[in-house]
Amino acid sequence: MQTKATNRLVVIGGVAAGMSAASQAKRRQPDLEVVVFEKGPWVSYGACGMPYNIQDPKRPIEDLVVISADRFRNERGIDLHTDSEVIDLDLAARTVTFETSQGDRRLEFDQLVLATGCRPKAPSFANMDLPGVFFLHTLKDAKSIKHYLAEQNPRRAVVIGGGHIGLEMTDVLVARGLAVTLLKRNDAVPTGYPEPVATLVREEIGSHGVELITGSRVTGFTGQGQVESVETDKGSLPADLVLVATGVEPVVNLATKAGIRLGTSGAIAVDDQLGTSAEGVFAAGDCAEAYHLLTGQGAFIPRGTTANKQGRICGANVVGAGQKFRGVLGTSITKVFDMAVGHTGLMEAEAQQAGFAPQAIQIKARSRAHAYPGAKDIHVRLVFDQSSGRVLGAQMAGGEGIAKRLDVIAAALQANFTVEDLGALDLSYAPPFAPVWDPILVAANIARKKVK
Amino acid sequence: MQTKATNRLVVIGGVAAGMSAASQAKRRQPDLEVVVFEKGPWVSYGACGMPYNIQDPKRPIEDLVVISADRFRNERGIDLHTDSEVIDLDLAARTVTFETSQGDRRLEFDQLVLATGCRPKAPSFANMDLPGVFFLHTLKDAKSIKHYLAEQNPRRAVVIGGGHIGLEMTDVLVARGLAVTLLKRNDAVPTGYPEPVATLVREEIGSHGVELITGSRVTGFTGQGQVESVETDKGSLPADLVLVATGVEPVVNLATKAGIRLGTSGAIAVDDQLGTSAEGVFAAGDCAEAYHLLTGQGAFIPRGTTANKQGRICGANVVGAGQKFRGVLGTSITKVFDMAVGHTGLMEAEAQQAGFAPQAIQIKARSRAHAYPGAKDIHVRLVFDQSSGRVLGAQMAGGEGIAKRLDVIAAALQANFTVEDLGALDLSYAPPFAPVWDPILVAANIARKKVK
Repeated sequence: MQTKATNRLVVIGGVAAGMSAASQAKRRQPDLEVVVFEKGPWVSYGACGMPYNIQDPKRPIEDLVVISADRFRNERGIDLHTDSEVIDLDLAARTVTFETSQGDRRLEFDQLVLATGCRPKAPSFANMDLPGVFFLHTLKDAKSIKHYLAEQNPRRAVVIGGGHIGLEMTDVLVARGLAVTLLKRNDAVPTGYPEPVATLVREEIGSHGVELITGSRVTGFTGQGQVESVETDKGSLPADLVLVATGVEPVVNLATKAGIRLGTSGAIAVDDQLGTSAEGVFAAGDCAEAYHLLTGQGAFIPRGTTANKQGRICGANVVGAGQKFRGVLGTSITKVFDMAVGHTGLMEAEAQQAGFAPQAIQIKARSRAHAYPGAKDIHVRLVFDQSSGRVLGAQMAGGEGIAKRLDVIAAALQANFTVEDLGALDLSYAPPFAPVWDPILVAANIARKKVK
Repeated sequence: MQTKATNRLVVIGGVAAGMSAASQAKRRQPDLEVVVFEKGPWVSYGACGMPYNIQDPKRPIEDLVVISADRFRNERGIDLHTDSEVIDLDLAARTVTFETSQGDRRLEFDQLVLATGCRPKAPSFANMDLPGVFFLHTLKDAKSIKHYLAEQNPRRAVVIGGGHIGLEMTDVLVARGLAVTLLKRNDAVPTGYPEPVATLVREEIGSHGVELITGSRVTGFTGQGQVESVETDKGSLPADLVLVATGVEPVVNLATKAGIRLGTSGAIAVDDQLGTSAEGVFAAGDCAEAYHLLTGQGAFIPRGTTANKQGRICGANVVGAGQKFRGVLGTSITKVFDMAVGHTGLMEAEAQQAGFAPQAIQIKARSRAHAYPGAKDIHVRLVFDQSSGRVLGAQMAGGEGIAKRLDVIAAALQANFTVEDLGALDLSYAPPFAPVWDPILVAANIARKKVK
């Protein structure tokens, strides 16, 4: 079958970026035919909420769906195909080929949005397919884990990987009553953080009874019928649930095959209007590069926030809005038990690599005013260029008030603030919410004295 | 008595600005003679913490003192005179006259810092001096209120005024078990806020059993030996504790008498290095004007944060550092029961007056992600210039995450962001801390469409 519309947008991928792009394009140009292919059964779901859904046995997994497939079809007029994978892209013919129960079909497009997302890097572990060994990437994965927790009642979990999914799931599995071991190939837990911040997080994990094993390489899994152990170069660990969270990579196979240019990060290269190297083909979300505001380079930094923003801009640009995506700072926040840890902008090593002359200072402060009850520790590590004084990034960890303090730094980074500018900020103050010298100002004032 | 040092700094006022200035100057130039006069018995205390100290019967009031007078004397080498009021300033002779138990004395200075603070506006109520009628301005006031609560066990309180002190003390007195009536001469509760935000706060107050009476003018108080009622133009209200919180004014009598120029706001005019119109005389904190970053005018906006910043800069400039105080945005946050309400930058009316073409939009959002438990409502009102799109201010109210979201706007204001810039921010996201579209971004995206 082959059909031809005078003006048809095809979107490949129906989670954050894809559905945002489809909705935005359709809203702006209601006579546009918008066809979305999503290989899974669900669309438009809050993937970042999966750990917390798993934490609560009573919540249906479908709670995470923000807008149902039927609403997209019936209320928004989007021709949405779920459980339907696009397997080929032909730029010359301007067609996509997708699988159906009646065989493969082709569909012509005028414009195309690639929103194929990312996927877990496939690690070379033996017996990855044993029941009880999971990734947590799609809603289907979340549902499987939840079902397994309910039906198999596992007692011992091993989480492999110290990134945000590994950390969040460690927290969640402890809350579900499991004994959890967190395994990391190297010593960097959490992944990417400088040691003085990372130490705080490891202490938090340890204080909740989690066994942390670093510098240990997994070779595979064993078990009869379901997983029973994780095999490592340092021995065997009993486990009746394993989560593999060893990182993700952009899904670019369709793009690559079609000759669409990738960036140095391995994700699809896009211009500031999210156009790819192919005429009329856009990319948005985790499969696309995002311009990094500090390095000036394209980066692969998958984030729900970025996917939503890019999806919307991409959808607008399909119908000629000419909107620009400004770029990213890599802002991230993760709950780890009673602590939040996060960062925005560059770590020192990244800043060095990007050609800055970074220096970092770290302070410990309280989250509330002197003598106000309930205050928690807040650790702020501020990275700045020691010759220009420009703020380059921050990493923070603490018991409260971390996420939005990172956002203050994110605003400062977008504004190209120096530490001097940062220290001048007129921040809100009342005893329940901050000390009179907010930790951000304390850090900025110390940094200011180190600028040469 | 008259003494003369070759290099002596005299500081009048020993709370936030005064002690910061004194400490900073002494630290930078240890051979400088630094003399501080504070008319009260305590120095360097966190005045903003007084309501919360009063809330807890077990905490000594002295908890609020950050650094004791003795530490300033012994560890920092500051010649600190407490319970010592300066009653005259002679610029020609370069002397201050201060009271002592042995009579008035004069002291020469080379440089002077005026950190005389603000004081409650004296309202013309009859029988203001009845026991049980209080201001809450100094630590002495706080101690008196606390003592009265403990000894007299008052049951019915009337709070007069809807500013932050009135609101905080309403909250605190309810927590202490009193039945509280909040009285306001006009309808503006909380003072200064646009109606759609103010309504939310009044609902919060009402839901905690507080009787709110607006449009009612107080004439005075009656009672035998202690206050028993508040008399208003609409009748009499029983009360055995009254808090008068009807606003403050800068303390400028010494400055005025000495011929030092005041600004249009009524506070002492200062340049960007906090110098006054008199050579070698600086002013900092509540008695001084602060340059408003948006209006470009001097403003009287007393804040502990500003006093601390100005004090430090002022102390550095006394010894020639030439530091500049950037200015203020009027950022403010207040806890009102389970709600926080605050603002930064300009309200619409202020923006209009400052020559902008303001427009405001208001949104309601949740503080955490879709389906994450424990989320609270967040209301964001964003004020922007409808021709340039420049962000002019924000008012927010809600159950959590208000203070630091205001700080994101404060950073945006200092950076002269447009609503477009604001909407591009790479803010942190994880389900426990924010929705994937943070309320700030939602507001910015709506505002963006209204810019002409």
